[in-house]
Amino acid sequence: MTITEIAPVAGHDDDRDRIVRAALSRVIEPGDPAALTAFAGLSPQETWDLLSSGAPGLDRWSTRMDEAAPERDLERAAAAGCRFVIPGDAEWPAQIEVLAEAGQLSRRGGVPYGLWVRGEGNLCQVLERSVAIVGARACSQYGEHAAADLASGLADTGVTVVSGGAYGIDAAAHRGALSVSGSTVAVLACGANVSYPRSNSALFDRIAATGLLVSELPPGCSPTKLRFLARNRLIAATTLGTVVVEAAIRSGALNSAGWAEQCGRAVLAVPGPITSRMSEGAHLLVRERNATLTTSVADILEAISPIGEHLTAYPHAPADPLDALDLEVRRTLDAVPVLRPAHAPRIAATAGLSVETVQECLETLADLNLIEYNSSGWRLTPTHRRSLGHPA
Amino acid sequence: MTITEIAPVAGHDDDRDRIVRAALSRVIEPGDPAALTAFAGLSPQETWDLLSSGAPGLDRWSTRMDEAAPERDLERAAAAGCRFVIPGDAEWPAQIEVLAEAGQLSRRGGVPYGLWVRGEGNLCQVLERSVAIVGARACSQYGEHAAADLASGLADTGVTVVSGGAYGIDAAAHRGALSVSGSTVAVLACGANVSYPRSNSALFDRIAATGLLVSELPPGCSPTKLRFLARNRLIAATTLGTVVVEAAIRSGALNSAGWAEQCGRAVLAVPGPITSRMSEGAHLLVRERNATLTTSVADILEAISPIGEHLTAYPHAPADPLDALDLEVRRTLDAVPVLRPAHAPRIAATAGLSVETVQECLETLADLNLIEYNSSGWRLTPTHRRSLGHPA
Repeated sequence: MTITEIAPVAGHDDDRDRIVRAALSRVIEPGDPAALTAFAGLSPQETWDLLSSGAPGLDRWSTRMDEAAPERDLERAAAAGCRFVIPGDAEWPAQIEVLAEAGQLSRRGGVPYGLWVRGEGNLCQVLERSVAIVGARACSQYGEHAAADLASGLADTGVTVVSGGAYGIDAAAHRGALSVSGSTVAVLACGANVSYPRSNSALFDRIAATGLLVSELPPGCSPTKLRFLARNRLIAATTLGTVVVEAAIRSGALNSAGWAEQCGRAVLAVPGPITSRMSEGAHLLVRERNATLTTSVADILEAISPIGEHLTAYPHAPADPLDALDLEVRRTLDAVPVLRPAHAPRIAATAGLSVETVQECLETLADLNLIEYNSSGWRLTPTHRRSLGHPA
Repeated sequence: MTITEIAPVAGHDDDRDRIVRAALSRVIEPGDPAALTAFAGLSPQETWDLLSSGAPGLDRWSTRMDEAAPERDLERAAAAGCRFVIPGDAEWPAQIEVLAEAGQLSRRGGVPYGLWVRGEGNLCQVLERSVAIVGARACSQYGEHAAADLASGLADTGVTVVSGGAYGIDAAAHRGALSVSGSTVAVLACGANVSYPRSNSALFDRIAATGLLVSELPPGCSPTKLRFLARNRLIAATTLGTVVVEAAIRSGALNSAGWAEQCGRAVLAVPGPITSRMSEGAHLLVRERNATLTTSVADILEAISPIGEHLTAYPHAPADPLDALDLEVRRTLDAVPVLRPAHAPRIAATAGLSVETVQECLETLADLNLIEYNSSGWRLTPTHRRSLGHPA
């Protein structure tokens, strides 16, 4: 489009801002660190004007201005069920503006010019209480299971599950939320109307039907590695916390965790077998980067909730029927030999109780089939030995 | 034995102390909290004298004095290849005296009167650089594998592996150390000449042949639950750190970890699948009790070594051949679309490089079979897409 087409027009400030931002979302790569420096402090209109001025050193962007056709993009988006949400809109998720501060210039930083959104929900409301579940594409069955399980559990409590729409952990997280008719959002590294990976297109349609597809790239854009990296910052910034389920040491999920940390969000990691390369990244986050080890929905709710709410009840030991025993009975039981029988006086001495008391307690324990008697004395029954993990 | 048999005899102080301690090791249950209070500040001889005095309130112990036959115990031990090591002996492991401070009266605390030892090694030297590997009896195959693997790795670096001789994690740890002809010590809750569990008796013989079997209980004693709990404090106190491999929420291994903490030793926990009950205890230790998440021998060595030695090299990412690429080539590659081809000018704009530079870089990348060209432009090759975890 030509510069004049989006020059100031009195009385149409809102539309003009949207059009300029849409144009910039095509001209400037997501999170381009050079753009952050070049256009620091400028409004979108001022940025556009500077690009149009032919000032030196701006070629990398100005050469793309001819491609920008924001009104066509907005129409095309509308036809594909998408809209372009910008700051000032009621559904703009203000928490994303943390990106104005977070990050370093060497990373793909900054607040996006706007978000292209597919789906009917109110973006701000849907993201208000949300958690990111991210991880490896090439995940294990265990990782997929864990992601789906945590996602469905979170969705069940009304938390929106945000992920990146990729194969593996991402898809499992979205599916987990959908499986309980929960809310889920995919933040994409391509246009919100583009299905990448293609074989997830049915999943994207399901997400759009009840949740949202979000991108800072205009319709039709395809993904690059740089765009995946830039996209990660949006996932981190819009959510209350990022849960890394499985990630190898070189994983985009660690980049997401880094963004979450810089945005001041909770960083959580799900452990796995130390024999699995796919869990190395999550273990590294706990060990070296202070992520919270996470094994349950309760852990996640605790991490994202105001202090004191949703405290995880540790240790969540299953109720042990032996806890119901009288204290002296319990002490007697603890003093009964596992295998080689002993008589009451010996057990009394071990337990530190009188022989009379112990005699009574031993009878109670025998009634409960916890101990047995032979001519050499008392010992645990095979059943009780087994229940303690001893060989029968 | 009668009191006079172990009454003071001039010129035989050492022998007398050993005999009195042997007698007390039979009369007083390991770590008996009531004994800690009743005999606080008394020497073994003073304790014995008090017990012999018929003073009131000491029945639970004095009734057992008739059973004590320390000289017979010492002979019987010698016949079974055992000796009784006491404070003052060259091989007494002085680090165990931390138990004089650690623990609460409600627990089975205190420094043992002596240690009955089977095996030829010098107890103090063998334990000088040692780590405990403990966990559930009813462990998973994963846990057994992890325990054996960590134990053999530690033993390979000259660290002694200490455990409790039980089924499951304990046995796997001992076997792991033995598999590399390493040093291992089993601290038992029964006499050092008693094989419990019986089916581990071949294992105990192997341990005694190259390592040590240790107990504070005299020969012939059989285990009780209280004795297992008391034994755990010895494992924690004699080692530089305790590694919990697998443990349910109600596990003796958590008791061991608690003792290690109170003794100021390193507490380490090995993660596992969140779907496994057997890993719940280890995860709890990391999350709630500040244990160090441990995935490798290097992690353990770092935790038990003076600060700065044996630093684990995190992140231990495998060398990526792409790291060898020139920076501009790398940036070009990152800007090439995953799937939908783009021409050089577009890629140059995404990468933030000149079109000329990008043209050269694209040729290099094509030579490396990382990208491919068709009439619509450049994109990643299926091979490279797959290596990034994208669908081919």
